[in-house]
Amino acid sequence: MPRISATKQAILAAALELGALHGISGTTMEEVAERAGVAKGSVYYNFASKDKLFEELLTAGVSSLSATLRTAREQASGFGAIEAMVMQMLTLIAENRALAKLMAAEIFRTDRVWQHTVSGLRREGVSEIGTALAPLVPAETPEATRLLMAGGIFGATLMGGLEWLLFTPETPVEDVAAAILFTYSGRLAQ
Amino acid sequence: MPRISATKQAILAAALELGALHGISGTTMEEVAERAGVAKGSVYYNFASKDKLFEELLTAGVSSLSATLRTAREQASGFGAIEAMVMQMLTLIAENRALAKLMAAEIFRTDRVWQHTVSGLRREGVSEIGTALAPLVPAETPEATRLLMAGGIFGATLMGGLEWLLFTPETPVEDVAAAILFTYSGRLAQ
Repeated sequence: MPRISATKQAILAAALELGALHGISGTTMEEVAERAGVAKGSVYYNFASKDKLFEELLTAGVSSLSATLRTAREQASGFGAIEAMVMQMLTLIAENRALAKLMAAEIFRTDRVWQHTVSGLRREGVSEIGTALAPLVPAETPEATRLLMAGGIFGATLMGGLEWLLFTPETPVEDVAAAILFTYSGRLAQ
Repeated sequence: MPRISATKQAILAAALELGALHGISGTTMEEVAERAGVAKGSVYYNFASKDKLFEELLTAGVSSLSATLRTAREQASGFGAIEAMVMQMLTLIAENRALAKLMAAEIFRTDRVWQHTVSGLRREGVSEIGTALAPLVPAETPEATRLLMAGGIFGATLMGGLEWLLFTPETPVEDVAAAILFTYSGRLAQ
């Protein structure tokens, strides 16, 4: 990863805080500069536009999520890979709550100039879960169906994780993972 | 339900279209008036502010979702209630795609003056699923754990539904519901 200057890092952190609070549309480059404690010209020197700034932020966030899911998947097998992915994704959401909120709010926006990038990156995260599902579903399952299941597990973990942080943040991450994973045990359908 | 004037209905429809496209922060009352084909004064006559307008829109949306989930739950029993709720929620998302996108983007925003209302209403939707889960989970399961599971099923259906409409809209709703419900069959964990 290329070295990021302290200024650029401060701008990204300020943009993340403001974006999570007011949404991307409700955030201006002036506010980002003020919050980061840098001149407005410095923000534009580092990022050509607000869209470029948030594209970089979300791209880095989804890449980090995909990498976390991939590592979890590769260190376990069978349903254990799903268990590891749910657990690691919840841990990442708790550590990056602002980014998780921003991603949840933006991943279905279709008007952004960078929506193609974000949509591709979302698919990247979902497809990591899809890969872990391949040996667990019937051999004849179409890929699109498997990705829908993966999207469901991704959505359950994202929504469960955000609800957890909002309503019962004192619950240990292991218990949150156990609650979500219980739904996949088959005991609900018995 | 009180009768809604044609003007008010046109304003709500315009706000929904613009909000789903540009986000609430990125939408102005001027744009809503223009899209609805009414004078700006008429928008303010019907809604005191943009926040009030979107609060009414989201409140109506979440109420309709809760009512749909409740009806589905009451017409089935056991795991059949979960199956009916997933199916009906997907149908509603497909019929109200703009509203579903707007809700997905806004339900975790915490800066809005009406976030308390929306958060309460989201809980209302999630708790309908929680009620259906009560007879399906071990008796000693704490309510918070059951609501986390319900949030997971809600999130899986919302994310699965939005992915479906974006990537494979030609798939019949029954197949989408079947894919999500397969994850609860226990066959993944075998």
